[in-house]
Amino acid sequence: MSHNSFGHLFRVTTWGESHGPAIGCVVDGCPPRIPISEAEIQAFLDKRRPGQSRFTTQRREPDEVRILSGVFQDEHTGGLVTTGTPIALQIENIDQRSKDYSEIRERYRPGHADYTYDVKYGVRDYRGGGRSSARETAMRVAAGAIARKIVPGMAVRGALVQIGEIAIDRSRWDWREVDNNPFFCPDAQTAARWEEYLDAIRKDGSSVGAVVEVVADGVPPGLGAPVYGKLDAEIAAAMMSINAVKGVEIGNGFEAARIRGEQNADEMRAGNDGNPVFLSNNAGGILGGISTGQPIVARFAVKPTSSILTPVQGVTRSGQDTEVVTKGRHDPCVGIRAVPVGEAMFACVLADHFLRHRGQVGAPG
Amino acid sequence: MSHNSFGHLFRVTTWGESHGPAIGCVVDGCPPRIPISEAEIQAFLDKRRPGQSRFTTQRREPDEVRILSGVFQDEHTGGLVTTGTPIALQIENIDQRSKDYSEIRERYRPGHADYTYDVKYGVRDYRGGGRSSARETAMRVAAGAIARKIVPGMAVRGALVQIGEIAIDRSRWDWREVDNNPFFCPDAQTAARWEEYLDAIRKDGSSVGAVVEVVADGVPPGLGAPVYGKLDAEIAAAMMSINAVKGVEIGNGFEAARIRGEQNADEMRAGNDGNPVFLSNNAGGILGGISTGQPIVARFAVKPTSSILTPVQGVTRSGQDTEVVTKGRHDPCVGIRAVPVGEAMFACVLADHFLRHRGQVGAPG
Amino acid sequence: MSHNSFGHLFRVTTWGESHGPAIGCVVDGCPPRIPISEAEIQAFLDKRRPGQSRFTTQRREPDEVRILSGVFQDEHTGGLVTTGTPIALQIENIDQRSKDYSEIRERYRPGHADYTYDVKYGVRDYRGGGRSSARETAMRVAAGAIARKIVPGMAVRGALVQIGEIAIDRSRWDWREVDNNPFFCPDAQTAARWEEYLDAIRKDGSSVGAVVEVVADGVPPGLGAPVYGKLDAEIAAAMMSINAVKGVEIGNGFEAARIRGEQNADEMRAGNDGNPVFLSNNAGGILGGISTGQPIVARFAVKPTSSILTPVQGVTRSGQDTEVVTKGRHDPCVGIRAVPVGEAMFACVLADHFLRHRGQVGAPG
Amino acid sequence: MSHNSFGHLFRVTTWGESHGPAIGCVVDGCPPRIPISEAEIQAFLDKRRPGQSRFTTQRREPDEVRILSGVFQDEHTGGLVTTGTPIALQIENIDQRSKDYSEIRERYRPGHADYTYDVKYGVRDYRGGGRSSARETAMRVAAGAIARKIVPGMAVRGALVQIGEIAIDRSRWDWREVDNNPFFCPDAQTAARWEEYLDAIRKDGSSVGAVVEVVADGVPPGLGAPVYGKLDAEIAAAMMSINAVKGVEIGNGFEAARIRGEQNADEMRAGNDGNPVFLSNNAGGILGGISTGQPIVARFAVKPTSSILTPVQGVTRSGQDTEVVTKGRHDPCVGIRAVPVGEAMFACVLADHFLRHRGQVGAPG
Repeated sequence: MSHNSFGHLFRVTTWGESHGPAIGCVVDGCPPRIPISEAEIQAFLDKRRPGQSRFTTQRREPDEVRILSGVFQDEHTGGLVTTGTPIALQIENIDQRSKDYSEIRERYRPGHADYTYDVKYGVRDYRGGGRSSARETAMRVAAGAIARKIVPGMAVRGALVQIGEIAIDRSRWDWREVDNNPFFCPDAQTAARWEEYLDAIRKDGSSVGAVVEVVADGVPPGLGAPVYGKLDAEIAAAMMSINAVKGVEIGNGFEAARIRGEQNADEMRAGNDGNPVFLSNNAGGILGGISTGQPIVARFAVKPTSSILTPVQGVTRSGQDTEVVTKGRHDPCVGIRAVPVGEAMFACVLADHFLRHRGQVGAPG
Repeated sequence: MSHNSFGHLFRVTTWGESHGPAIGCVVDGCPPRIPISEAEIQAFLDKRRPGQSRFTTQRREPDEVRILSGVFQDEHTGGLVTTGTPIALQIENIDQRSKDYSEIRERYRPGHADYTYDVKYGVRDYRGGGRSSARETAMRVAAGAIARKIVPGMAVRGALVQIGEIAIDRSRWDWREVDNNPFFCPDAQTAARWEEYLDAIRKDGSSVGAVVEVVADGVPPGLGAPVYGKLDAEIAAAMMSINAVKGVEIGNGFEAARIRGEQNADEMRAGNDGNPVFLSNNAGGILGGISTGQPIVARFAVKPTSSILTPVQGVTRSGQDTEVVTKGRHDPCVGIRAVPVGEAMFACVLADHFLRHRGQVGAPG
Repeated sequence: MSHNSFGHLFRVTTWGESHGPAIGCVVDGCPPRIPISEAEIQAFLDKRRPGQSRFTTQRREPDEVRILSGVFQDEHTGGLVTTGTPIALQIENIDQRSKDYSEIRERYRPGHADYTYDVKYGVRDYRGGGRSSARETAMRVAAGAIARKIVPGMAVRGALVQIGEIAIDRSRWDWREVDNNPFFCPDAQTAARWEEYLDAIRKDGSSVGAVVEVVADGVPPGLGAPVYGKLDAEIAAAMMSINAVKGVEIGNGFEAARIRGEQNADEMRAGNDGNPVFLSNNAGGILGGISTGQPIVARFAVKPTSSILTPVQGVTRSGQDTEVVTKGRHDPCVGIRAVPVGEAMFACVLADHFLRHRGQVGAPG
Repeated sequence: MSHNSFGHLFRVTTWGESHGPAIGCVVDGCPPRIPISEAEIQAFLDKRRPGQSRFTTQRREPDEVRILSGVFQDEHTGGLVTTGTPIALQIENIDQRSKDYSEIRERYRPGHADYTYDVKYGVRDYRGGGRSSARETAMRVAAGAIARKIVPGMAVRGALVQIGEIAIDRSRWDWREVDNNPFFCPDAQTAARWEEYLDAIRKDGSSVGAVVEVVADGVPPGLGAPVYGKLDAEIAAAMMSINAVKGVEIGNGFEAARIRGEQNADEMRAGNDGNPVFLSNNAGGILGGISTGQPIVARFAVKPTSSILTPVQGVTRSGQDTEVVTKGRHDPCVGIRAVPVGEAMFACVLADHFLRHRGQVGAPG
C-alpha cells in the first residue's frame, strides 16, 4: 500500500510540492525495450502546461521533464529505450515566487485541502497548496506518456464535453477539432460559445465546473479482472483521484439509472472473426469489469475552481472567522487542463491491466 | 495485488461462485477485541437476502453465515471477540437448482459478463453467472458488518433515491422510513409511487435502473490520504466494483460541473471546539481526499437488470447469432438490493482508512 | 498488504486456528485452465500429515481437502481446471479433543508464541496454539500443490539434510531415497543413523533441530526482479515465515562468508544454445536476484520443537513464575514435516515470479 | 506490488543506476512531524561512502543527499519536520568516469548480474553494473536514517563479526569499538588481525566474504504479524535483498538446528512490570513472528566481491568463451560497507511494523 502510488504492475509513485524545488515520479514495472524520449513525454506535458491561453492560470512554468534513470541506448537502433528498471522523471519548479504566504498560512480556504491536511498531519506546506496543488498532475501526464506505449494498438483521447451549463452537441463530435481550440472541445460550434461564456466568468473573477470524456480505442477484449480489480472500478478510482473531480461514470453512466433493460441492452451479432459485434456501447466497453473490445468510455465531473475573486467565508487556523478572496492567477475552469490528466490516468490503468492480464493469462488476443 | 481483495489494512478477500458449494470471505487485519457474532452479521445479510418482496429475485437462499476463524471468547465478558487473526466467513449455497444449463453455457447474454469471462479465461462456471453473479455481494455485506464496528461513533446508512425516472423528494427525507418499505426509500410518498411503477415493469418482464445514496455520519476529520489513496477515489472504486454500477459521485457530484465557484463553495465559520463549521456540504465531506468531519455522502447509479423477458439479440459461444430471453426469477430492479451492499463497501473503505490513518499518524481526534 | 497473504500475482491467503472448526486458504491470481483435482492436492497433504511415523506428532487428522471454488469442468477434457477466479481450499479440523485447556490458557510456554500473541492482541485462541500452530502449514502445502503446476517444466523437491549434529553425506545424495525413509532423507545411510538418534531423543521426551534443503530444477533464466523483489529475498521471506525456521541460505550461503572470490566464482563457458553453462552453482541459481537457469537451491534451519517433557521455566499470564512440562503428543523433530512445507513455499515463490515476469516482459525463454 | 519498493506503511522506493545522472528514493507513509535534516541523513551516508579506508573501493563520491519534498518548517521549533507526504531524496552521481565500457558491455562476468539482467530484459545499462550496482544501497541508508526515528526508544546498531575465516571473539564485544576501526568491528583485537589479513587479500587482488550482525534494542513487544508478515520473515527478505547477501539468520539461527529443545529454550521469569524476563535470547527477540521485547538480533552472510584480479572464465554476450579480469578499484570485502546498509534495512522493517501494529491494534505498550 502506498498513498502516493498508483497501479500494480505498471506502478507510478509521485512526489513533490507546488513550491518545493522540484516534482517527480518513479515509474516501476514498465516493460523493457519500449522506445521513449524526453521529447515524447514533453509533448504531453505541454498540453497540460499552464499559461497557454487566457483560460488557464498564468503561472509560468516551462515544465521541462528530465529522465534520470531506467532508460538506455538500444544497441540496435541507437535510440533510448526502457530497461525494465525504475524510470525516474523530474521537473524543476521554476516559478516559485517568493511572495508573502502569511495569508494562506493562517487561513483555511473553502474548497481547498488546507483544513484537512492540517487536521490530518498537524503541519503542511501551505505555499501554493503544497502537495494538494494540481501541479502534482504534471507527473501523472508524464507517466501517462509512457503508459500509452504499453498496450499495442491502443489510443487514448480525451475531450471536454461540458462547461457549466453548456454541453457539446455530440452529433458534431470531431476528434480533429480537439486541438483547434483552447478547450480540447470536439465540437467547434460549442467551443466558440464557450469562449464567450468563459470570458465572462473569467472577467467576473468567478469559475465554473466541467465534464471531461475520455475514450480508449483499440483495447483488446479480456483486460480487467473480477471482482475488486474491475477495469471500471480502477478507472473510477483513477479519475476520482484527480484534483477537483466529484463524479465518474462509465458508458451511459447515470443515464442507465433512468432507463429500462431493453433500452440499455447492448445487443450483439456474430462478427466475422468469431468475436461478437456489439450494436451499441451503453456499457462503455466493460462487462463484469472486463473489456469487451469496444471503446472504453468514461466521463468525469470537475468542480469549479475554488479560488475566486468573490469573498467567501472561511476560518483561520487559530479558529477565527475570516473572509477569503483569491487574488492573482487562477484557472477559471480547471476542467480544461484536466483533459490531458484524465487521458494519462486512463492510459495508466489500461497499461497496468494489460500487464496484469499478461501475467495471469498470457498475452491477449 | 489481488483481484478479489479489497482494502489495505482492513482487507477483504472473497471467493465463490453462484452455484458452487459455498461462498466465503476472509477479513484480514481486523483489530482485536471487537465484539462480533454470527447474529450481528446475519442481520445485515438478511437485508440483502433475495426473496423478501415481490421486487427482488425469488431465489430461496437462507444465506446463513458461519464464522470459521478469527473470533474467540473474551475472558472478561464471555462474548465472542475478534482475535486479530483472519476472520473466515462462509455461506453455503442451498438453492442450486440442478437445472439444465445448456442454454446459458452456449450463449453470450447482452449486459452479462458471459463473453468477457470467456474471452479472458477461456473457461467459466456459467451456472447462474458463476463468479460474476451478484451473489458474491453477500460476502461484502458480511464483511461490512464487521467494518461498521471499527470507526468509533460512525454510522453508515444507505437509501434508494431514484428508480428509473422517479426520484425521491429530498425535502421529505426521513431515515426512519427506509425500513418501512421494500425499497429502502427514505420518502414514503415516493415509495408508494415506486410500488405501482415497479409492479408494472415487473409484469412486463422488464427492469429498470436506480440510484443509491450512502451517507456516513460520525467520521472524524483527517481520514483519507493524498494523492492516490484519496478517500473519494477509494469510495469510487468500491462502489464501481459492485455489480451493475455505472457511475459514482461524491457530494453534489456531476451537479458541480454545472455551477460556479460561488455556488459550490462550502463556506466555514469558526466552531466552538476550534474546528470549522461548514455551512453546506457540496464536497460530500471530503476535501483533498481527506474527510472534513462532515457526513461523507456518495451516490451510485445501477443499471437495469440485464435479464429481461423481452428477446434481445445475442451470440453463441461458437459465433452464431441467437436470441436471448430470460425465463424465471430475476430482480426487476437490482438497485434495491444494492443498498445494503453499498453501505457495506462504504463501511469497509472507512474502516480501512481509519486504520491507515492510525498507522501513519496515530489515533484521530 | 495483508499479514496472512503471500505472493503478489499468485497470491495465497490462509485462515484458521488449530482447534477451530476448519482451516482454509484462498489462492487468487492462478492462471486459468490449469488441470487440478482434490486428489492431486491431497497427495502432497498426505506427505505433511501428522501421525505417519513415530517421529511425528500422533495427532490424528485425515486432512481431507475440499475445493470450494475456482475450478470447473473443462469442456474438452471433462476434467477439472482452474477458472482464473479464487480457488478456496478447506480442511475440517477433526481431532479437536475437548480437553482441558486451563493450563495452556494461563501459561506462557518458552519458545511458543503464547506471550507474543497475548501482548500484541490482548486475546488469543490458546487451544493447540491457535493461529500460531504449525497446522496452518497444511494450507501452504495445499496451495503449493497448485503452484507447482504454473511454471512449465519446473520440479521442486525437498530433503532433510541435517538432524541435530548429524548431517548427511552429500556424496550419497539420491533423490529416490527421499521417499524410502520417514525423514525425507536423500542419503540412506544417514537415514538409518537418524532413526536411532531420533528414537533416543524421542524417548527422552526431548527434541532436536534440523536443516531442510529445497531445490527447484527447470526454472527458466530471468525469473526474479531487482532490487527488493529479488527471487532470493522472497525465498528467504517464504522460508522464514514457516514455523520454527531460524535461518535461510541460498546456494553456498554462510559458507560464502568464509571463502575468497576465486573460490566462490561460478565460472561460465559458452553453451550450445547461446546461453552460458555454469561450471559450479555457489550462487544457488540466482544472480542479482534473477534466476540463472541453474537449479535454485536454498536451505533453512528449523529449531527443535519447544514442547518437551523436561520442565522449563515459564510465567503465567498473570505474572507468576511457573514450570512448563509438555505432556502428550508432539514432534521430536518438526524439521521433518517442514520438508513438504518448504517445497510448497518454494513453488509459490517461483509461480508468483513466473507470472510477474510474464506480466512485465512476456513469456520467458 | 513494486519490485523496487520495500515496506508497506513505511514504504521506500529507490531508483537510479550506478553511472546515470543521479540516484534517489521516495519514502512514502512516514508519520508527520518527525524532525529530519539533510545533515542527519548525511551522517549515515558518510558511513557507507566509498573511499574512506584502503579496504573499500576508491570511487570518489561525495554522496551529498538533497531532500526535495515532504519536509517543511515546523511552526513551533522552526526546524524541518516531515509533513506526511512523500519524501524525495536524491544524490547526484559525480564520479562517472567517461571510460571505455566496451569490455563490460560485451562480457558476462561471473558472480555479477550481467547475464541475468540481459536474459530478463534484453537490454541493460552496463556502466558500472547499472541498476545492480551496490550504489543503490546508498538510498537504503538514506531512507533508513528516517526510519530510525519512527519507533520511540529504538536503537539499531550493526557490526562486522566475521571476515573470511576469522570471526570475532564475542566475549570481547564492545559497541564503542565499532567506530574505532575501518571494519565496524566490535572486538579491537580481531580488528587488528583483520587489518593484516585483509591487506594481504587486497594486495593479491582477491576478495573475501563476511558476516554482519545487526541488533535492535528498545523494540517494544508485539511488533510483527502472523503468519506471512512475520517480523523475522521480513527481516530475512530485507537482508537478502542487499547485494551479495547469501544467508540470513535470526537469534542463534543455524545453530538451532544442531541442538536440543532444552538447550534452545529461552526460559522466562516474572518481571517487575508484569512482562516476562527472558533468561536467554536464542530466539533473537522474535516468537511466532512477533517481537518479545528482547533485542532483535539478525546476522547475514556476504559473499566475496566477484570483481577480482585473478582471471576467471566468463562468456561474451554473443556466446563466446572469454576471460574476465577486473582492473581498477573494487572492495576487497563488500561486507564492510554492508554494515550500515544492514542497519538501515533493519530500521525500515521495524519502522514499518511499528506503523502496521499501530494501525491494527493502536500504539504499542
